[in-house]
Amino acid sequence: MESSIEAPRRGRPGHDQNSMLEVIVQVFTDHGYDASSLGMIASRLGLSKSAVYHHFASKAEMLEIALERALGELERVFDDAEAQGGDAVARIRYIVREAVLVACAQQPYLILLLRLHGNSEVELRALERRRVLTARLRETFRAARAEGSLRDDLDPGLAARFTFGLVNSLVEWYRPDGPTPPQALAQAVLSYVRSGLRVNETTDFR
Amino acid sequence: MESSIEAPRRGRPGHDQNSMLEVIVQVFTDHGYDASSLGMIASRLGLSKSAVYHHFASKAEMLEIALERALGELERVFDDAEAQGGDAVARIRYIVREAVLVACAQQPYLILLLRLHGNSEVELRALERRRVLTARLRETFRAARAEGSLRDDLDPGLAARFTFGLVNSLVEWYRPDGPTPPQALAQAVLSYVRSGLRVNETTDFR
Repeated sequence: MESSIEAPRRGRPGHDQNSMLEVIVQVFTDHGYDASSLGMIASRLGLSKSAVYHHFASKAEMLEIALERALGELERVFDDAEAQGGDAVARIRYIVREAVLVACAQQPYLILLLRLHGNSEVELRALERRRVLTARLRETFRAARAEGSLRDDLDPGLAARFTFGLVNSLVEWYRPDGPTPPQALAQAVLSYVRSGLRVNETTDFR
Repeated sequence: MESSIEAPRRGRPGHDQNSMLEVIVQVFTDHGYDASSLGMIASRLGLSKSAVYHHFASKAEMLEIALERALGELERVFDDAEAQGGDAVARIRYIVREAVLVACAQQPYLILLLRLHGNSEVELRALERRRVLTARLRETFRAARAEGSLRDDLDPGLAARFTFGLVNSLVEWYRPDGPTPPQALAQAVLSYVRSGLRVNETTDFR
């Protein structure tokens, strides 16, 4: 899965919007969005404030574009799953696998999203989009339960929160140069989500 | 499970160290530890800075005491599990259940722990203690696999990270006045971790 937003390059080489955004998101994550000043951002980029303003209208715009990297990709996963049709259980499989791949590919942007405090309009809109995604997963779990392919003793809302909680937590420790590549990680998560830790039906893990 | 640290009350009524700490942790969480100044903390408490210093030697001490609420309790869970002896699978059951109860009971302190940036000595020590807890869970999973009570196709290190990731994510949405009390939440998590989402061995959820 590739990043969907490829802003046209402008400005001098090495200072296109994309590569600047990586640095900016690091500042936001290191210090929190509220505490990150334009001065800190310009300094980390080695640019003047006015040069930064050549690329971004405001700190809020930086945040909005960065969050789109995470939210836009996750929304696309759900859209694709729904466009495919088929059983709800197949959609769940697709969503879980692709969400893990998004977490790996868009890691810094997802970390930013998960640490928002909700102190601004941009943040509140992003948090609302997160809530909508959780609701979509809950409805998919509900549909799977209705078709008989999901256990009926676990609330679909809890199942959705547990599953997103697990997938989101990957960004806390995943390393692109680590021992587990994204596809293998997606397979391990899917396996854990599908059948848990127990060996089989007869183990005493209850 | 009760909080283990009950500091002796001092100062005037309503301003004991415990109730102050709740407010202080809220400031840290709203603005990030780095951006939280003593002035902000004193203002939120409605006290002078010197009155705050009567209770806490420094901002670092506030953080250390707050983090102990989360880390101390989680370490106690592992100590208790090990003291009980028995099968590794029984220890896992105990650890998962009790860790959920700690997440609910110590929610603000765990949120603080999970959002640390690691920019100070106190933070780095706390992050090291988190790593040790993850390693202890991994070793417990490894022991369960050795005794044949845990599936052998999932890396114990990944299983530990997935499980802590799920449990930690509860603090993002759990509400003490919500519809799911801690004991029921612990049971639902345990059930999810144990056997996943599938109905039974014959479903096509793979």
